[in-house]
Amino acid sequence: MNIAGVPYRTIRLHADEWSVDVIDQTLLPHEFRLARLQTCNDAAAAIADMVVRGAPLIGATAAYGMALASRQDASDAGLARAHAQLLATRPTAINLRWALDEMRSATAQLPPAERARAAYRHAGRICDDDVAMCSAIGEHGKRIIEEIARRKGSSPVNVLTHCNAGWLATVDWGTALAPIYKAHNAGIPVHVWVEETRPRNQGASLTAWELGQHGVPHHVIVDNAGGHLMQHGAVDVCFVGTDRTTATGDVCNKIGTYLKALAAHDCQVPFYVCLPSPSIDWTIRDGVTQIPIEERGADEVRLVRGLGPDGKPTAVLITPPDSPVANPGFDVTPARLVTGLITERGLSAASADGLAQLFPERGTRSRR
Amino acid sequence: MNIAGVPYRTIRLHADEWSVDVIDQTLLPHEFRLARLQTCNDAAAAIADMVVRGAPLIGATAAYGMALASRQDASDAGLARAHAQLLATRPTAINLRWALDEMRSATAQLPPAERARAAYRHAGRICDDDVAMCSAIGEHGKRIIEEIARRKGSSPVNVLTHCNAGWLATVDWGTALAPIYKAHNAGIPVHVWVEETRPRNQGASLTAWELGQHGVPHHVIVDNAGGHLMQHGAVDVCFVGTDRTTATGDVCNKIGTYLKALAAHDCQVPFYVCLPSPSIDWTIRDGVTQIPIEERGADEVRLVRGLGPDGKPTAVLITPPDSPVANPGFDVTPARLVTGLITERGLSAASADGLAQLFPERGTRSRR
Repeated sequence: MNIAGVPYRTIRLHADEWSVDVIDQTLLPHEFRLARLQTCNDAAAAIADMVVRGAPLIGATAAYGMALASRQDASDAGLARAHAQLLATRPTAINLRWALDEMRSATAQLPPAERARAAYRHAGRICDDDVAMCSAIGEHGKRIIEEIARRKGSSPVNVLTHCNAGWLATVDWGTALAPIYKAHNAGIPVHVWVEETRPRNQGASLTAWELGQHGVPHHVIVDNAGGHLMQHGAVDVCFVGTDRTTATGDVCNKIGTYLKALAAHDCQVPFYVCLPSPSIDWTIRDGVTQIPIEERGADEVRLVRGLGPDGKPTAVLITPPDSPVANPGFDVTPARLVTGLITERGLSAASADGLAQLFPERGTRSRR
Repeated sequence: MNIAGVPYRTIRLHADEWSVDVIDQTLLPHEFRLARLQTCNDAAAAIADMVVRGAPLIGATAAYGMALASRQDASDAGLARAHAQLLATRPTAINLRWALDEMRSATAQLPPAERARAAYRHAGRICDDDVAMCSAIGEHGKRIIEEIARRKGSSPVNVLTHCNAGWLATVDWGTALAPIYKAHNAGIPVHVWVEETRPRNQGASLTAWELGQHGVPHHVIVDNAGGHLMQHGAVDVCFVGTDRTTATGDVCNKIGTYLKALAAHDCQVPFYVCLPSPSIDWTIRDGVTQIPIEERGADEVRLVRGLGPDGKPTAVLITPPDSPVANPGFDVTPARLVTGLITERGLSAASADGLAQLFPERGTRSRR
């Protein structure tokens, strides 16, 4: 998508054609700067420090991390080390393991000398595939917005979204925001309620920024406000992303998603989850009990980062300094609260049957 | 309750016996300082600027505002002006109007020269009555905690609360926290999940502070985390306060309360609302459609206040500077999601029948 009129991807090869440029998302929305990854360590740190985030972009960055590793040490041991290092950066996103395993399959059978070239080629393909998947999700989701717009006449379709499942979370287009961009580009009036998404405020900082850059009308709200807006008819549809969705349609996503799904259900607002198929974990049937939830650092809650009065990034302490903090990073929305899953192949019920119908080659496997 | 071992009320007469000291809650948890109110304007500003907040304390401050006004100009016109000025400070809390009407009844029939003395006496009584009501709420709520503790054996009872309905929101004891203080004081092991409560973070700043001062074990969490914790059995009971509860048991409270009630309902966690009876609006039957919801300023969302790295209070901008913001201050939890109302007279079902049984003198009136 565009930043100030210039088309970007969130990750791409540097001009030297071997190092990798990513958008440093820790600086947004206040500063736009690229970060250059030159080693597997750089890639691992970028994921762990959330310079890049969002399940699909984490996968793409890990893929390039393997490519960088294969330049450094393409031995079996070297690549196994890189695989383990990258896998350990974030425990929740399923795309991470998927991308690493893809990279291994693409290179393991080759002699070490040929691995780097194959790795770069395959990382590039993972990125291109992600763009194609997100674009397809956008087209399928756009139809839902179109239908609501037809019903509403000229007033805008109000979409609520949580966290950032926009193009910044992927390579391009985004997952939950792809339908919005597609609808907006097609001239359908859309307005987005952007939840700030504490503790890291990816909604307030990233989603609001990318929607603003693209000219999509929106309002930032606190996470607490979504239920009230739904109760008062101010939300026509919810679109969220996912870090991992089970073969049965349970949706693991940024902490707080479950609360919005409950409100949508209570207020009869359709609640859709947008996901490329690599976000589906075909091995898991019960999201609430089986998906490990990352407990993140206390300072994410204690300290709020933003732009200080002097125009420089700073952090303010909002709790008593000695109050303990708990900080689970994700929650699981049971499939029963999800209206539908929007994948690159189309819309599916959030159920084992629905997913198996759309992905017969995988759905069947999940029934072993 | 105690601050560093010294007993305090949130509001009391200054040593001069006519001006009024309140705790400046905008500075907590980082600085403890009293603010002195010397005029009705001071009282109105303290309420509007949230130097004092919490429905019962707003009522008590408004009562003293009327006393200060009656010192300045005890004419009918003067007091009518003061009544209107104070009433306009916050639109949602029902206690505000209740306290102002009480003050009017206590003084209107007197000759102007006698009004100031009567007003001070009556404001003092409103404060003492609030303490007595909160203490009674604490005793009734403590029994619920006791019963859970009996079931759980030696492991602590986990309570989740939203916003600040502690002693800082009242004159003493608090509403939602009163049962917790009573249980803790009685040696029952209690642990509190304190929701930070964006946008103003009254949980992180006030509830965490007052629990810490009193030695009650707690963790601060983001508002998004409450549902996940309930889903995983980490919450035994929810206690929240209310700014206004209808005669039918619909509960208006800080934005986000509705989302926690939905999660509690979904996870079969009991969800109690603690309220002194002046918080009941006997004239309203449908909370969602009839209670006006205060739309607060955008900067509450855009800017997060806290302690900067230099140890001074500061605010950081967390959104793109040009992103619009919506900021509804309260939401309404339908009675069907509320396990019970804990009032100074005991526990009631959240229904017209339940409330009428407990308050036959008012419940009957509400059925006209």
